[in-house]
Amino acid sequence: MALDVIMLFGDSITQGGWSDGGFGARLANAYSRKFDVLNRGLAGYNTEWALPVLEQCLPNKRDQQHVAKIKLLVVWFGANDACIKPSPHHVPLPKFTDNLNRIVHLVHSADPSTKIILVTPPPVNTHQRLANLASRDPPLALDRNFEVTKEYAEAVKAAAGASNVPVVDVWTAIWKAAGEREEALSRYLSDGLHLLPDGYAVVYEALVKTIASEYPELNHENLQYVFTPWAEIDWANPEPSVQKREAVMSRN
Amino acid sequence: MALDVIMLFGDSITQGGWSDGGFGARLANAYSRKFDVLNRGLAGYNTEWALPVLEQCLPNKRDQQHVAKIKLLVVWFGANDACIKPSPHHVPLPKFTDNLNRIVHLVHSADPSTKIILVTPPPVNTHQRLANLASRDPPLALDRNFEVTKEYAEAVKAAAGASNVPVVDVWTAIWKAAGEREEALSRYLSDGLHLLPDGYAVVYEALVKTIASEYPELNHENLQYVFTPWAEIDWANPEPSVQKREAVMSRN
Repeated sequence: MALDVIMLFGDSITQGGWSDGGFGARLANAYSRKFDVLNRGLAGYNTEWALPVLEQCLPNKRDQQHVAKIKLLVVWFGANDACIKPSPHHVPLPKFTDNLNRIVHLVHSADPSTKIILVTPPPVNTHQRLANLASRDPPLALDRNFEVTKEYAEAVKAAAGASNVPVVDVWTAIWKAAGEREEALSRYLSDGLHLLPDGYAVVYEALVKTIASEYPELNHENLQYVFTPWAEIDWANPEPSVQKREAVMSRN
Repeated sequence: MALDVIMLFGDSITQGGWSDGGFGARLANAYSRKFDVLNRGLAGYNTEWALPVLEQCLPNKRDQQHVAKIKLLVVWFGANDACIKPSPHHVPLPKFTDNLNRIVHLVHSADPSTKIILVTPPPVNTHQRLANLASRDPPLALDRNFEVTKEYAEAVKAAAGASNVPVVDVWTAIWKAAGEREEALSRYLSDGLHLLPDGYAVVYEALVKTIASEYPELNHENLQYVFTPWAEIDWANPEPSVQKREAVMSRN
């Protein structure tokens, strides 16, 4: 029923990826008729809470022959784990690294052919974030800061390196796009934390580029339609020509 | 693995529904963490070619217990069937009606609990369409016209009525939005046939309204997250509190 799948697994920044200009919607558009792109964003979740969800999102051994394959899992956490104490979202840095390793292990145990990309959290604009939190009723104290989130972004890169999994370094990509000035992040972030369309555009471009270089067989430009283009249908006897086929072409 | 599903089954106007402002992306956003919204748009296809595809998109009896349920199937054809001869897309009006009936029957045979909505094709702006076709190399003759597409839209409404299935009358909604003036359709159509964001906005609003009135249990506002909101997680022992649950709430 389902086509093979790209699953976007993360927090609110992933969940919001189907809003206007969001990276999930753009990816779904690029992969239409090739892969289904599924939103597994969980607002507010850290890696600790997300791990038992992931177990339920992967096909179990019994069902595997009946369900679609996850071709690519994009794992994007850190924005909540990096919350500072006493936030309930806080996950200590060594535990965060351990959880990323467990996520990679879990995915590869469920299906060794599933490709993985880790993504670093975006930089925090503490000026914007503080103003947003201060405007709430009651006002809230700063829950994230620039340097700590940067450390969590570094930890994602280190975990990816240790597991030999590609990484999309959103932290650095947005930081550079903003000219390495915290105030200039407001073009990419709505509230110092979540992404505006310009922020998602940076993510989308970086992700598509990483897929193309690291997993070229999954690049949307290298895939064929699962159901043939209309001009290739045998109009006199359509049924045989519209049989489902793999989007990944065998020559890859 | 998959959440339960809303499947959008149609032609290029459905396939394009994940572009900027598209109705598919907006629906996926509204249903995030509740249902997966799947793009089963097939550019250029008419009902004759799409029927054998649909058979492959519905869960078969053997796999049904392993895969997600299709909660809602949105069926949106007519724009290609209404092509005028000698176009290969042309499907005679009685055959078109017959195919719509076969689609409804096929879906209900696969799973009687799947809800269906039929959608009428948008009106054609022959001025825009002619200009678009004339500008191609080599120039093409007009392949659709206003009155014929209107008849196919009427046929969708009649088939829906005969099968007791709700219909979203996009033809009338866009026609009225344009003040019933063919030239004014250019606000909603890019080339006299395909939809601009303003056209998709009309479709989205009408579809969401029809779901709310005809299938209120599937209205996104009446659904709960499959994986609980973060604030309801038991932070001391997260696993039991994040067990997958039905998005449709039992009180509905």
